[in-house]
Amino acid sequence: MDKFEIPLPDDALRFKAQQVRKAFLNTSQASNKERVKALNLMADSLLLNCEKILEANRLDYQLAQNKGISNALLSRLKLSKDKLLQGIEGIREVGKLNDPIGQLQIKKELADDLLLERRTVPIGVIGVIFESRPDAVMQISALAIRSGNCVILKGGSEANLTNEQICKALIEGLNLSVIDQNSICLLTSRKDSMAMLNLDKEINLIIPRGSNHLVKFIQENTKIPVLGHADGICHLYIDSEIDIEMGIQVALDSKIQYPAACNAIETLLIHKDVASEFLTKALPLFEENNVELRGDEEAQSFGKMLPATSEDWETEYLDLILSVRIVDDIDEAIGHIQDFSSRHTDGIISNNMNNAAKFMNSVDSAGVFHNCSTRFADGFRYGFGAEVGISTQAMPPRGPVGLEGLVTYKYFLKGHGQIVKEFASGEKVFKHIDVEN
Amino acid sequence: MDKFEIPLPDDALRFKAQQVRKAFLNTSQASNKERVKALNLMADSLLLNCEKILEANRLDYQLAQNKGISNALLSRLKLSKDKLLQGIEGIREVGKLNDPIGQLQIKKELADDLLLERRTVPIGVIGVIFESRPDAVMQISALAIRSGNCVILKGGSEANLTNEQICKALIEGLNLSVIDQNSICLLTSRKDSMAMLNLDKEINLIIPRGSNHLVKFIQENTKIPVLGHADGICHLYIDSEIDIEMGIQVALDSKIQYPAACNAIETLLIHKDVASEFLTKALPLFEENNVELRGDEEAQSFGKMLPATSEDWETEYLDLILSVRIVDDIDEAIGHIQDFSSRHTDGIISNNMNNAAKFMNSVDSAGVFHNCSTRFADGFRYGFGAEVGISTQAMPPRGPVGLEGLVTYKYFLKGHGQIVKEFASGEKVFKHIDVEN
Repeated sequence: MDKFEIPLPDDALRFKAQQVRKAFLNTSQASNKERVKALNLMADSLLLNCEKILEANRLDYQLAQNKGISNALLSRLKLSKDKLLQGIEGIREVGKLNDPIGQLQIKKELADDLLLERRTVPIGVIGVIFESRPDAVMQISALAIRSGNCVILKGGSEANLTNEQICKALIEGLNLSVIDQNSICLLTSRKDSMAMLNLDKEINLIIPRGSNHLVKFIQENTKIPVLGHADGICHLYIDSEIDIEMGIQVALDSKIQYPAACNAIETLLIHKDVASEFLTKALPLFEENNVELRGDEEAQSFGKMLPATSEDWETEYLDLILSVRIVDDIDEAIGHIQDFSSRHTDGIISNNMNNAAKFMNSVDSAGVFHNCSTRFADGFRYGFGAEVGISTQAMPPRGPVGLEGLVTYKYFLKGHGQIVKEFASGEKVFKHIDVEN
Repeated sequence: MDKFEIPLPDDALRFKAQQVRKAFLNTSQASNKERVKALNLMADSLLLNCEKILEANRLDYQLAQNKGISNALLSRLKLSKDKLLQGIEGIREVGKLNDPIGQLQIKKELADDLLLERRTVPIGVIGVIFESRPDAVMQISALAIRSGNCVILKGGSEANLTNEQICKALIEGLNLSVIDQNSICLLTSRKDSMAMLNLDKEINLIIPRGSNHLVKFIQENTKIPVLGHADGICHLYIDSEIDIEMGIQVALDSKIQYPAACNAIETLLIHKDVASEFLTKALPLFEENNVELRGDEEAQSFGKMLPATSEDWETEYLDLILSVRIVDDIDEAIGHIQDFSSRHTDGIISNNMNNAAKFMNSVDSAGVFHNCSTRFADGFRYGFGAEVGISTQAMPPRGPVGLEGLVTYKYFLKGHGQIVKEFASGEKVFKHIDVEN
């Protein structure tokens, strides 16, 4: 996907998107009960159409195999009956989450009989672009409907038949509910998936699910806000006063528990005072777990490892590779993180509470961790019950984002004929009293 | 300011911006007390340098006059002693606002001895681009320091001498505090103000203060998030069941109280059943207040007004001009607003509570108002004590944004050696218990 001019949406795509926008007017007004009911009807319909979906997936798989698609992609494309049933159950689970809509955030009497409220409301139309994984269609549709939003989906073309069957079933389910069937819309052509990046009047938020490459491409080619992150370059800093055994276990877990995850570490920073003891004990364990270490000059002096080049500090390996740098003190560690972190999650291992506090306050990442694995940075592990994405931007939403990422808020002001002129003249005065609900 | 290639920052600008980023590490750690103290020292220093600032402003004014700059710009450029003293007082007022930093938003025990907290933190480096108004330098610097942020300022070149004197005084004040003097940085060349749009590694948020044209230009030419809005096309819908007198007063106030404001209405939508009575009574009042009306065909039948063209519905007049459309029912009104509103603020006048609720729930704008003037859509009138901008985007922050717009949050996770492997294996389990503070 090299840089090229993103095509403008054609009339057919524009029309589809406008249908979804219209549906939003209805979906955003549906009650919590109605939205939950719709989810269950969607789940029922998927169950009813189980065989058709699996058959479509077998066909997709076969076509992909014939095309010689990579094994990694093939395994993500494959939808087993178990995985499908799990996905269906997932939809019902989303129905059990707290209603994110209508939450009161501010209630204030601005003046006599002039009441301001701020409440959460759905965002609008969410554009979702994902690679392979047909289970993502179910999950993201459920999250969107749960939060009163509508969704335009574009999956990888290798899963087109599966995605079509899943969407057909979802829409059949929706049709039995009070929610407009146009609330879920699937695009299947690559042209449309590019052109949707230009639908900034119709789409309010884009959620990409896929490789760094996909996310980066989308971020650079749309004016629509994008919820997601490209790189996940996470660090673990081993301070001077530590429980060595704990440090080693956390470092190992942060690297090897699932190295392809964005919250796995890429760089280990070690205080010079403990470098020898730490590395002497840790190196055999890393070796045992097939982790390739790439160290700076000092690190290399403590054991066999490849030399780290300057490129290593800015590389997300997503693999069993770990760069190691020895630092003189905590400030050098914080400085390194400031220079190279992608602001996802960075951790410190230390028994010194002042150092831990300094690290956590100074490091400007979405997650700052003390004495635990960076792999905890995850919407489910945080207890959000869902994860719509992980954001590494400075502004909220930041870090793992649950349903909260699919809602916004608006201000409701209710008066009895108040005009600003009376306040400007001093005839009336503002009170600005917070009101308990 | 036509479309053109935004220049890349040169080394000098990049260096300046990096100095500010470094300062952020310090400023973000300053305590509430230290930040408030810094504000008061900034205010003291401005007071001490009052005469120098006013002298610089007289020179700027003279130069601008010689250049034949418009009267509107001249009047915004002019800094009277009163305005300056007011600005200084404003800085001390910002010090009295509640500390926006360190607010606990989430506290959750994920598992035994594994505690997650989400707290508000400063955003980082705020880029502010404004036209004329030298008082904006004081206000926005105060808001930035109050919230632990750093700021890179670029004002209109016609106010360069004034802005330089103000910034010099602010920095002298900062210098007496513990806060790094590099926390406030003024750019004075036009080249730098363009190039700063490309400082997406150094600047976290841009706040434009100026014309629609300026805001739009910035939004279209930077990857940095922009807090602001280009258009403010607000509507007032006069429903069928109303107190006519109230409707007229609110409509008048919403248009004439300050027509150049973004929260003034541009279009009045009137239910056909009350159009005759409403317009018969309202027309003389609008005429008396020099409001030019532009109506659709039906509206024109009720009195003398110019015909509205389709362009009128999408024009922000910022002037004593008001377009008028007669609608068959509330749905047509909502439909018109969906098509043309800039999602700033839209209001309904109605004694029918169902209609009011329907309008407020359906209209997808940052502010939905019932029986009161749209002119209340303002950070000060909402009681926020400050306004850093008004946002018309779908995602938060939305509507008038106070200090909240200058803070973000991060997740702090504190453990005792927990690793994900133990949870994946079932050896340990998540509890996800909300903890009261």
